[in-house]
Amino acid sequence: MFNQADHHYMALAIKLAKQGHYTTSPNPRVGCVLVNSIDGKAQIIGRGFHQKAGKGHAEVNALADARLNYPHLIKGATAYVTLEPCSHFGRTPPCAQGLIDAKVARVVSAMVDPNPAVSGRGIAMLESAGIKAESGLLESEAKTLNLGFIKLMTQALPYVRVKLAASLDGKTAMKNGESKWITSSKARTDVQKLRAESCAIIAGADSILLDNAKMNVRWSDLGELQSTYKESDVRQPVRVVIDSQNRLTPELAFFKIDSPVIIINTLTTSPLENSPQWPHFVEQVKLPTVKNSRGEFKIDLSALLSMLAKRGLNDVLVESGANLAGAFIEQDLADELILYQAPKLMGGEGKNLVEMPNILSLSQAKALNITDVRLVGCDVRITALLNKGA
Amino acid sequence: MFNQADHHYMALAIKLAKQGHYTTSPNPRVGCVLVNSIDGKAQIIGRGFHQKAGKGHAEVNALADARLNYPHLIKGATAYVTLEPCSHFGRTPPCAQGLIDAKVARVVSAMVDPNPAVSGRGIAMLESAGIKAESGLLESEAKTLNLGFIKLMTQALPYVRVKLAASLDGKTAMKNGESKWITSSKARTDVQKLRAESCAIIAGADSILLDNAKMNVRWSDLGELQSTYKESDVRQPVRVVIDSQNRLTPELAFFKIDSPVIIINTLTTSPLENSPQWPHFVEQVKLPTVKNSRGEFKIDLSALLSMLAKRGLNDVLVESGANLAGAFIEQDLADELILYQAPKLMGGEGKNLVEMPNILSLSQAKALNITDVRLVGCDVRITALLNKGA
Repeated sequence: MFNQADHHYMALAIKLAKQGHYTTSPNPRVGCVLVNSIDGKAQIIGRGFHQKAGKGHAEVNALADARLNYPHLIKGATAYVTLEPCSHFGRTPPCAQGLIDAKVARVVSAMVDPNPAVSGRGIAMLESAGIKAESGLLESEAKTLNLGFIKLMTQALPYVRVKLAASLDGKTAMKNGESKWITSSKARTDVQKLRAESCAIIAGADSILLDNAKMNVRWSDLGELQSTYKESDVRQPVRVVIDSQNRLTPELAFFKIDSPVIIINTLTTSPLENSPQWPHFVEQVKLPTVKNSRGEFKIDLSALLSMLAKRGLNDVLVESGANLAGAFIEQDLADELILYQAPKLMGGEGKNLVEMPNILSLSQAKALNITDVRLVGCDVRITALLNKGA
Repeated sequence: MFNQADHHYMALAIKLAKQGHYTTSPNPRVGCVLVNSIDGKAQIIGRGFHQKAGKGHAEVNALADARLNYPHLIKGATAYVTLEPCSHFGRTPPCAQGLIDAKVARVVSAMVDPNPAVSGRGIAMLESAGIKAESGLLESEAKTLNLGFIKLMTQALPYVRVKLAASLDGKTAMKNGESKWITSSKARTDVQKLRAESCAIIAGADSILLDNAKMNVRWSDLGELQSTYKESDVRQPVRVVIDSQNRLTPELAFFKIDSPVIIINTLTTSPLENSPQWPHFVEQVKLPTVKNSRGEFKIDLSALLSMLAKRGLNDVLVESGANLAGAFIEQDLADELILYQAPKLMGGEGKNLVEMPNILSLSQAKALNITDVRLVGCDVRITALLNKGA
C-alpha cells in the first residue's frame, strides 16, 4: 500500500512535527510535507509544522511554503501529514478544506484523529472531494508524538509521567533527610526539559515546603534547547500542588513565579474563605477525598486528573515524594516512569523511592516495560511504561 | 614511540587474550602476535594465547604457530604480548628466554608484570640479549584483561565483584520474603557467566539455606558460551560460604555438587570436632571475627579475602544478601558492583538492596563510577566501580 518513498516523506513529516515538541501544547504536534514531480522526479515542494496553539496548522504552513516556491506544483501533489487533517472550524479553518481548495491529488495521514467525535471525518471530506486519502503510515511513530493529546481524546485523562530520582539502591534521602543533590546537574537539566514539555506539573505541598521549590522551567537550565527555541516560546507548565492541610503560604518562593498555579484543597477541610491572599495567578480547586489503606483521607487522584483533562492539560509530570508518586503508580494512574539513578549506594537506612502500602505480594508488584536506558551525565536514566495492572 | 601498525597488532593480541577469559584463572589472560615482513610487507606469522594453567603461555603458543607456517620468518620478527614475558621457571620455561632463543628482534608488551618481585625482569632479560623491548602500548585495555591477577599481585587481595539484583526501586524481596524470580532468565544466564569467570564465589549461609542454592556454574545455562568453550574447559569456582553459626548440613543441594567448597567458621564459636561428615571436596576454615556497629560479631572480611588471595583465588564474586554485600561495600572491600534491575516497582515495604548501618549522612554514601549500562533481556544491568572511600 505504501512504498519506500511514502515512508521517507512521512518520516520527514514526523521530524518536522517534533520541532513543535515544546510549544504546541495543548494542541498536537503535527508535521506536513508536500511532494510533486518536477521533470518526472519526485520533489519536496513544501514543508510545515504546527508551532503553537492559535497559529497555522502544519498543512496550512506547508501549503504557504509551497505557494512561495512552487505554486504551480501544488495541484496534483501528495500531502504527507502526521495526523488526519482537521474537518472543523477551530481557531483556523479546516485543513481538509484547505487541501481540497489547493487541489492536491493524494493525502497520506500517519494516523486518524484520535478524537472519536471527529475521527475519520477529515479523510471522508477529502475522499468526497475526489482526493485519494490513506492513513496508517508510520502510525506508531506518529502516536509517540502526541501521547498526551491522544490519551486526552480517547480516555479524557492526561498522560501521566512520574519523575523520580534515587541512588542505585533506590533511596531518595538519608534517614536524616539529606537529599541535596543526589543526582548531577546534567540530570537536573534533563528534568527541566521534562517540565518544559509538560502542560502541568503535580507536586505535593511537602516538596514545596521542604525544598522551597519553585517547580518552574528555568531558561538558563535548558541547555541545548536554548539554541532551538526562543525564551518567549517556552511555556511554563501549570503548577498543580496538592495541599490537603492548607499548609502553603504566599511567602513561599513557589508563589514568586508569575505563572499559573492550581492549589488543590479537599472538599471537607479547607476553609477557603479564610485562605490567605494569593497572587492573581493562583486558583484554588476543591476535590473529593478517598480513604487509603492506612485510613487517611487523600485527594482523589482520578478526580484530579479528570479536572486537569477538562482544562486541556494533556501532558502531566508528577514530581513528588514517595507517597504521592506511589499513589499514582499503585492506582494505575501513571503511564510512564522516568527514573534518574545517581551512582551512589546509600544503604538500607535511607528513604524509599515509592511507597505502595497495598502491594504485599510479588504478583501485585507493578510491572514495567523499559523503553530507554541511558547515561545522563554520570547518572542513569531509565524510561519505562507502566502496564496498567497487567 | 608506537605507530599505527603497533596499535593494530597489540589490539589483536588483546583480542586473542580474551579467548582465555573463562579458562586461564588463576593465571593471567595473555595474547601474543608475531609479525615480520614478507616481500617488504608486514605479515602476521604467528598467534597464540594462554588457555589454561599448566598449558603453554601465549608466547610459546605463538612461536609454535609461527614454526608451523613461517619458520624462516621468526628470526627478526616483532612480538606483541599483552603482558611482559615471564623471566622465571614456573610450570613452563621462561618466555623471555624462548623469545631470545627464537631470535626475535623486538618485543612490545602492553604492560609490565604487575608482580613487584619480577616486574621489569623479563624486559631486562630481553634487552641484555640485544632485543629491543618496549612496554605500555594499550596498557589500560590490557589491564582490564586481568583485574584479579593484577590486584592479587599488587595488593595481595582478590578483585571483588558484588552482584546484586533488585527491582527498579531497589527492593530484593517482598516483606513476606517472596523473591523468585525478580529478574529474568536472561539476567540469570548472565550471572552464570559471572560465576564462570570467577575463581571463587562468596555467599552467606542464609542464601544457601533460604533458596537451597547450589551456587555452581550450570553448563546448560551458559547460553552462547557453549559455542566457544567445551563443557570440560569451564571451571567451577570455589564456593565459599560464611557459616558463623554452623547452620549448614551435608544434605543441602549445595553439597551435592562435587566441586570445592570452603566453609568459613568463626574462631570462637565453631566446634569443628563435632561438625557433620562433609563430602571430600569441603574444607573448613576458621577465621577471626570483628564486632560491627550493631554489636554483632561477624567474620573479618579482610581476613577472608587475604585467605582467598593466599590460595591464588584472584577474581571473587560476592552473591549474597543485603547484609553481607553491604558489609563488603561499607568496608571498601568491593571493587565493582554488578546490579541487575528488573522492570518492577515493589514499594517501600520490600526488602532493601544493601544494608550499610554505619552510613548516616549523604557524604558517607558510597560513590561509584558507572562503566556500563545495558539491557539484558528485559532487565537493566549496571556495572560500576566502587571508589575506595573516595
